[in-house]
Amino acid sequence: MKQQSSVTAAHVTHLRVRYAETDQMGVVYYANYLVWMEIGRVELVRSLGLLYHQLEREEGLYLSVIGANCQYRSPARYDQEIAVETRVGKANSRIVEFTYRILSLNPDRLLAEGSTRHIWLDREWRPTRLPAQYAAKLRVDASES
Amino acid sequence: MKQQSSVTAAHVTHLRVRYAETDQMGVVYYANYLVWMEIGRVELVRSLGLLYHQLEREEGLYLSVIGANCQYRSPARYDQEIAVETRVGKANSRIVEFTYRILSLNPDRLLAEGSTRHIWLDREWRPTRLPAQYAAKLRVDASES
Amino acid sequence: MKQQSSVTAAHVTHLRVRYAETDQMGVVYYANYLVWMEIGRVELVRSLGLLYHQLEREEGLYLSVIGANCQYRSPARYDQEIAVETRVGKANSRIVEFTYRILSLNPDRLLAEGSTRHIWLDREWRPTRLPAQYAAKLRVDASES
Amino acid sequence: MKQQSSVTAAHVTHLRVRYAETDQMGVVYYANYLVWMEIGRVELVRSLGLLYHQLEREEGLYLSVIGANCQYRSPARYDQEIAVETRVGKANSRIVEFTYRILSLNPDRLLAEGSTRHIWLDREWRPTRLPAQYAAKLRVDASES
Repeated sequence: MKQQSSVTAAHVTHLRVRYAETDQMGVVYYANYLVWMEIGRVELVRSLGLLYHQLEREEGLYLSVIGANCQYRSPARYDQEIAVETRVGKANSRIVEFTYRILSLNPDRLLAEGSTRHIWLDREWRPTRLPAQYAAKLRVDASES
Repeated sequence: MKQQSSVTAAHVTHLRVRYAETDQMGVVYYANYLVWMEIGRVELVRSLGLLYHQLEREEGLYLSVIGANCQYRSPARYDQEIAVETRVGKANSRIVEFTYRILSLNPDRLLAEGSTRHIWLDREWRPTRLPAQYAAKLRVDASES
Repeated sequence: MKQQSSVTAAHVTHLRVRYAETDQMGVVYYANYLVWMEIGRVELVRSLGLLYHQLEREEGLYLSVIGANCQYRSPARYDQEIAVETRVGKANSRIVEFTYRILSLNPDRLLAEGSTRHIWLDREWRPTRLPAQYAAKLRVDASES
Repeated sequence: MKQQSSVTAAHVTHLRVRYAETDQMGVVYYANYLVWMEIGRVELVRSLGLLYHQLEREEGLYLSVIGANCQYRSPARYDQEIAVETRVGKANSRIVEFTYRILSLNPDRLLAEGSTRHIWLDREWRPTRLPAQYAAKLRVDASES
């Protein structure tokens, strides 16, 4: 399978740390960074003119996760403003990788880096290709596989 | 609408507090008690010979929440063993109320009390009645409305 | 204990439904409304010139929940924009009640209503009074008890 | 830094999928596998005669995550019984890696595999070594660094 490195610029999404996201160490619980990554990729997709919930409802296309990793650099704390920088990494019409940098704004600090890999599924949960008109928006060459 | 007080004995479910469930006060975050209530009512239903996931998949019956309340008496802490006592409260074929007492076992202490109210929905999200064979298991008189 | 009805206007906070907040019924899981209530009251407090995390860190004041309830009117769905209207309800220097209306913006619909009650605790988890300078910001008459 | 491959056998923990853990795709939301990993490693540690909450409270030792990854093989569904197999991977007195295999029991299927890496921190959040008496229980050679 050939893959294509994307030149997509980072999309930046802001959020504020919720009390519910902290744990008794006084910092954000580690699984919640994956929730923030999901917010980052949904907002990146929205910024490209796609609505993920429309892909699901109208096209029956589901972006199913096959892998995730996160490297934790510095803890996030309650009420901090967070920036999630999301980029499309390697991608073709069947697989999409997103990469993430998660930063606090005050102080300005890298908190975590990571990536998630996804495949497209149809309504019957079979792997499928992202149709060309959507692939173009994600800057993925749909002719590749 | 007539309602019927249940004489169902309490069903007791045990669980252990997860790190993910704590917050930076060092105790369980308040919304998680509603998650424990859900576990309690599913296990109560299971103990009566019903599988809630079968009701959903095979009968297209959904137990939709219309109200919830919780009174917090004492905080739950990480790694404590918790008992969730669940009872069927007022119920007929259209509405079910569950009541809950949530206790820690070591020390033996009441942590919270609460209740949830639910209606049955069909696959089109219309209010419906619980069929008689299921109502009987929940000890609900299906002839009432 | 005398209590005082607040004339505080509603503070409105906006958020967008996260995929993580949905469940397999295709709507927001019921416990997450309590997370949104927390966001609402923190932002209300912020709008009054108080930072809750500073109260915790610098003053050792903790807003501990003693009761919560929520009435569910209509389900929230993935990616909807949500408005959380929060008001200070009955309050004095020891107890604060917040009331909430949770609405979707598109369509414009009431999703849920509820309230939470809280007491102030000090670092040793003893009930305490909110100092007068903070009570004034919350429009609470600190002379009452 | 030398590291040591552990010969620790897998510890197996069982849990049941909660409704709260599903999302609108009808399967478990991907971040929740990290919550299950946490349960797996806490129970592994307990099985070796250590209580993680005692390490935190009495020794001021915190197991801080520095990396996590998960490969998703097959989706977990509501109410399934899950087995979390946890092993100590590479470990010395400063760093511990845990590896995980997450399986459903009915049907018997591999759902996910992954690992987490951790360092020990003291009460001031400085990296520290696990004292020898605890390292021995984790089958880690505390003389190495």
